[in-house]
Amino acid sequence: MAAEPVWSVDPRTGKPREQVAVEASAEEIDRAVRAAHAARAALADRTARALLLRTAAEAIDRARDHVVEAADAETALGPVRLTGELARTTAQLRFFADIADEGAFLDVRISRADPTTTPPTPDLRRMKIPLGVVAVYAASNFPLAFSVPGGDTASALAAGCPVVIKAHPDHPATSELCVALLRRAAREAGLPEDVVTLVHGFDAGLELIRHPLVAAAGFTGSVRGGRALFDAAAGRPVPIPFHGELGSLNPVVVTEAAAEERAAEIGAGLAASMTLGQGQFCTKPGFVLAPAGAAGDRFVAALTDAVSDTEPGVMLDHRMAGAFLDGVRERAALPGVTTPVTPGAGGEHTVGAGVLAVDAALLAGDGHAALLEECFGPVTVVARYSSREQVSAVLGLLPGNLTATLQMADEDPDAASLLAELTPLAGRVLVNGWPTGVAVAEAQHHGGPYPATTSPFTSVGATAIERWLRPVAYQSTPPHLLPPELRDEDEGA
Amino acid sequence: MAAEPVWSVDPRTGKPREQVAVEASAEEIDRAVRAAHAARAALADRTARALLLRTAAEAIDRARDHVVEAADAETALGPVRLTGELARTTAQLRFFADIADEGAFLDVRISRADPTTTPPTPDLRRMKIPLGVVAVYAASNFPLAFSVPGGDTASALAAGCPVVIKAHPDHPATSELCVALLRRAAREAGLPEDVVTLVHGFDAGLELIRHPLVAAAGFTGSVRGGRALFDAAAGRPVPIPFHGELGSLNPVVVTEAAAEERAAEIGAGLAASMTLGQGQFCTKPGFVLAPAGAAGDRFVAALTDAVSDTEPGVMLDHRMAGAFLDGVRERAALPGVTTPVTPGAGGEHTVGAGVLAVDAALLAGDGHAALLEECFGPVTVVARYSSREQVSAVLGLLPGNLTATLQMADEDPDAASLLAELTPLAGRVLVNGWPTGVAVAEAQHHGGPYPATTSPFTSVGATAIERWLRPVAYQSTPPHLLPPELRDEDEGA
Repeated sequence: MAAEPVWSVDPRTGKPREQVAVEASAEEIDRAVRAAHAARAALADRTARALLLRTAAEAIDRARDHVVEAADAETALGPVRLTGELARTTAQLRFFADIADEGAFLDVRISRADPTTTPPTPDLRRMKIPLGVVAVYAASNFPLAFSVPGGDTASALAAGCPVVIKAHPDHPATSELCVALLRRAAREAGLPEDVVTLVHGFDAGLELIRHPLVAAAGFTGSVRGGRALFDAAAGRPVPIPFHGELGSLNPVVVTEAAAEERAAEIGAGLAASMTLGQGQFCTKPGFVLAPAGAAGDRFVAALTDAVSDTEPGVMLDHRMAGAFLDGVRERAALPGVTTPVTPGAGGEHTVGAGVLAVDAALLAGDGHAALLEECFGPVTVVARYSSREQVSAVLGLLPGNLTATLQMADEDPDAASLLAELTPLAGRVLVNGWPTGVAVAEAQHHGGPYPATTSPFTSVGATAIERWLRPVAYQSTPPHLLPPELRDEDEGA
Repeated sequence: MAAEPVWSVDPRTGKPREQVAVEASAEEIDRAVRAAHAARAALADRTARALLLRTAAEAIDRARDHVVEAADAETALGPVRLTGELARTTAQLRFFADIADEGAFLDVRISRADPTTTPPTPDLRRMKIPLGVVAVYAASNFPLAFSVPGGDTASALAAGCPVVIKAHPDHPATSELCVALLRRAAREAGLPEDVVTLVHGFDAGLELIRHPLVAAAGFTGSVRGGRALFDAAAGRPVPIPFHGELGSLNPVVVTEAAAEERAAEIGAGLAASMTLGQGQFCTKPGFVLAPAGAAGDRFVAALTDAVSDTEPGVMLDHRMAGAFLDGVRERAALPGVTTPVTPGAGGEHTVGAGVLAVDAALLAGDGHAALLEECFGPVTVVARYSSREQVSAVLGLLPGNLTATLQMADEDPDAASLLAELTPLAGRVLVNGWPTGVAVAEAQHHGGPYPATTSPFTSVGATAIERWLRPVAYQSTPPHLLPPELRDEDEGA
């Protein structure tokens, strides 16, 4: 069977640009994973990992114009956004270089021998070690920051795990360009270039997750694709951790008092957040509980005005644009759903943003479940509530989320109880902000109850590294045989 | 359909002692989980959790004679071992009370607002919160320390998670006695008693793992039972973390130099460890690589002598004794396997310990895989190697383990390279010790690559609490709405 070609496609025209690669065969996957596995030992040195990450960051920064141009041609995300994403990506590589250097993630714990406990405690010294080869499934919507040089790759390398990356079909040329930069950085850092490998193809992705030498996986994408890979990871003879970020509605609650105080500001802010990058962020606020009545009407009017003013935009690919149009059509056709701004096709290759509205009381019924599912693209659903109890009833229907947002007034009688109800629903809870924009920080958490993520871990921020590690305890081990990090200080290296 | 009765059985005679309970119906499971779910809020207060754990420890200590008698009647583990296990269990409850009080597990991280980063960092404050109702599947071989009042229950309660425990059928009366003590302790600590519930029955266990309000599970038991529950947990519409400890061979490598130096001591030590508690520890050393030649012969002779001297003993139940006898018979019948001590039936209700031996060169062949699988009970397999390369070849065949042990000489040329090969195989690596006996300590790790455990977490030691938590980050949240642990110090409570 001839290998399937992998094409780079221009989403602004739907036309193929160039053939970039071919899909990987099972033998090629096996070769890539074995080469990565063989490169593990070279990553044992944390200094070398940090050097690799910093060298890669410098190389990507130097190639900025070229990378941004390649990514824009395949994703239509535009040079401004992509220049920002590139800066975020290289900052993230340096952030994980610092983390590798510092070593706090090793979580060293030492229990000295104590014969008085039950049972007696021997000398125990514990630290975390890398799991092995990590499979990374790149995202469509972040061709850099959640793709080849993105957070999964950076955190896995910082942990000491070689990565085999499955490219997203929406940006294969960008992926090839970035992996070449990463592999050259590895060589320059004195490491085998097989610490990072790229493969293409849907079937290749399934082969990869099933490979016996793959020890863990990171994924950013749809519920359907992520769940299929999760199931494959769990169904292996030796199951492996699958850290997937699948989908999120990112609910927003606008309190009565907030609407009274800031209806116009909240409406404009929501419009900006939900249309940012054509609504193609996993943190897009896709569902809003807003009060019925005059203040809520003012909020909806402001939202409607701002969304009506946005220009139609190009989505990441035509299949996604089609799914968006189908999704909004299905939702708009539900009984009781109105369209303050009708989302839809803006032209041959663009889609227009929109707003749907519904009485919150209708959501408890069977027929409206689609309104509580993510619709990827520039649309949000406003559910109008007429009592505090109705807010609780609707929140009780929501699946897990990456984020949950409270828009409250300065003095707001409902704020505390609503925060308590929003916390179980999400991994990040925001007050008077918007969830798009995920800072790379120590305290960040980008994850949440399923389907937001498949595990209680984050894919952004310092603790993302925890996904690629497991503890090992050494008992009564002579100092000279211990890893240096576990020796007493006076025992040196 | 009438509810199936649950009988307490005397393993010393195989006779039923008393009917203790009936198996839980699906409706009863639903009721138990909903009641536990409703009790969550009461556990939000860490001081209350600590009080519950300490009150429970005191109650169990006070009821010691009664509990030990009940457990001995059902498990035949003997009053000495059970008195020790009870002390370990109540020490563990107090250990987790201290952990709940101290709060380090909350893993508080604060990133202050910084507009200079890309993208800008808002004020982010992260901590860990309880996952929700935890299902605990009790172990056969530790009726206390890994059962109703055991480490899973203690760590889950310390994390703030109510527990629904599925009793092990080998000790239902002990389980009922212990849960009554725990529920009374909850009342005394001012908590709803539904923070701990006990259910019986195999089908009940499957109902429990599938219940939508169960958020995570802990399990200690067999590969078969554990895998079935793991698959059920992963196959749910909303998958949940399943922390199972399934099975472990616990390999030991005796170096050439160690055998030269301490053959007799190592043989006697191994005999004591592998026959302890009728070989019914998950950390029983079940596979030993020992050198061919005279020093290795002395080691095998010492092992043989010591094992021959042990009295036949009662296993936890007759089904387990039968599986042990079948397992050793199957292994002893393999080509090239000898029986320095023939394990087998010691009497109508007892089994005798044994030692199997084989040339390590035979293990690479297809027919000897059973020797590399755990055989629960008092037997170990000694594989005689004739080169360092052969040791590596055999280690490369082993599945994941809870422990791996190196028996080395003071000056041992093979020690460093062997430790490097043992580390990927296990969660705890021991030098010149024996793996039975798992101290409850900060640095303990009781887990390992599959099938030792299904996740890179520990079920013993301080970090066992990490299994029942997930992070949540609060963004730009007014101090008075933050959990007290996330406020700045000058903002008080």
